[in-house]
Amino acid sequence: MALSQLRIVLVGTQHPGNIGSAARAMKTMGLSRLALVAPEKAPNHESLALAAGADDVLAAATVHATLAEALADCRLVLGCTARSRRVALDQLDPREAAGRMLTEAVGGAQVALVFGRERTGLDNEELQLCHAAVHIPADPGYSSLNLAAAVQVLAYELRMAALAAAPAVPAAGRADPPASHAQLEGFFAQLGETLDAIDFHKGRAPESALRKLRRLFLRAELDEREVRLLRGILADAERMAMLAGQRR
Amino acid sequence: MALSQLRIVLVGTQHPGNIGSAARAMKTMGLSRLALVAPEKAPNHESLALAAGADDVLAAATVHATLAEALADCRLVLGCTARSRRVALDQLDPREAAGRMLTEAVGGAQVALVFGRERTGLDNEELQLCHAAVHIPADPGYSSLNLAAAVQVLAYELRMAALAAAPAVPAAGRADPPASHAQLEGFFAQLGETLDAIDFHKGRAPESALRKLRRLFLRAELDEREVRLLRGILADAERMAMLAGQRR
Repeated sequence: MALSQLRIVLVGTQHPGNIGSAARAMKTMGLSRLALVAPEKAPNHESLALAAGADDVLAAATVHATLAEALADCRLVLGCTARSRRVALDQLDPREAAGRMLTEAVGGAQVALVFGRERTGLDNEELQLCHAAVHIPADPGYSSLNLAAAVQVLAYELRMAALAAAPAVPAAGRADPPASHAQLEGFFAQLGETLDAIDFHKGRAPESALRKLRRLFLRAELDEREVRLLRGILADAERMAMLAGQRR
Repeated sequence: MALSQLRIVLVGTQHPGNIGSAARAMKTMGLSRLALVAPEKAPNHESLALAAGADDVLAAATVHATLAEALADCRLVLGCTARSRRVALDQLDPREAAGRMLTEAVGGAQVALVFGRERTGLDNEELQLCHAAVHIPADPGYSSLNLAAAVQVLAYELRMAALAAAPAVPAAGRADPPASHAQLEGFFAQLGETLDAIDFHKGRAPESALRKLRRLFLRAELDEREVRLLRGILADAERMAMLAGQRR
């Protein structure tokens, strides 16, 4: 079932009890894959107590040093944010997010949904690893869902999407598999090198342009062939820059 | 707003903490009317602690001796059940239930959503006061949502229904206006020239690559600023190609 390809990733969780509550929320909705990135404290007796009968989810959780490591094989990554952020990612509501995740998972891809720290959420660098942001449309006057409540709402939407799922319809016109996280990062690294090589920045700080390009290409949800095509173009541009440099 | 006519009724709650957690879940979704029917213990410090900032919801909660009393002025009453019951009520999923409740509330009616005891739910007599049952489609193998989690899911669906009824908000996260057709075509034309200039095609027909690139960038729904950024990169790549050409 597609739900088994959906991974819940908790980043920097501060209270071990919340890891247990999140595991319980997941299991009620048929989700089983939990990844923990640098939790402040490892799961403990408190996690177990709050997991209630979801101790199997807790026991099978993987632990990672970095978010990038936890996402390495994922083709779609969505990050839950408490409110609109300066990072201008596309924002999906939980229903849209669940639909998108399910479609990818039914197509065979690994998919991750990332939740940040209790107090501060995901930082900008972490959000930049995400294809889009998910925002639970809480009351702006009081939007303090706790971590397990947020996981519960998203897990519920994922289950509703899975139950509604007709036989998979591949997204129109997309024959090739979506690019993996690693393939995209390879492309972004080469893009950075090419911009240097063609002297695009001309003394300006490169971060702003790179951030905008990253956002644009993540939004496009590139497939593997498109990444190869774009990298081919970058390679030729770099070759030209090298020849030009030899001339100067 | 219609949400103010929706009442959450908790029957025979066993743990005061759960009353607080339910109040918090309600408030995150803009619900404020809480009715308690014969709670085992009155709300206390534990309820307050778990309510977090939702102590106003808790303070305004009404307490009733019987469910019938709590429902006296309600035109639609739905009862949340953990699983299908012998009581042959219509069963709605949370989304259907929210839609129905909102429709009634918008029409001016008082509406109630009733949750039973933590361990045993609503009894048959209580369910007979309900117009229909609401069932959260949890995993049959592990359906143990706690009370606050169930309230969170239903409150979320009520808010989604209320937002869907409200005028649309422009998509978040995109500050710049989308590129016009003419701007996009200008970009695609320059892209074609650049690919020629950096000798990307190497004798192959250029149409196929250009078609793929067009599809990719159309899919990304570029805004004006992104088109300017991409055209700036193309201009630098062309400049390098020209310098390289002068050398050859």
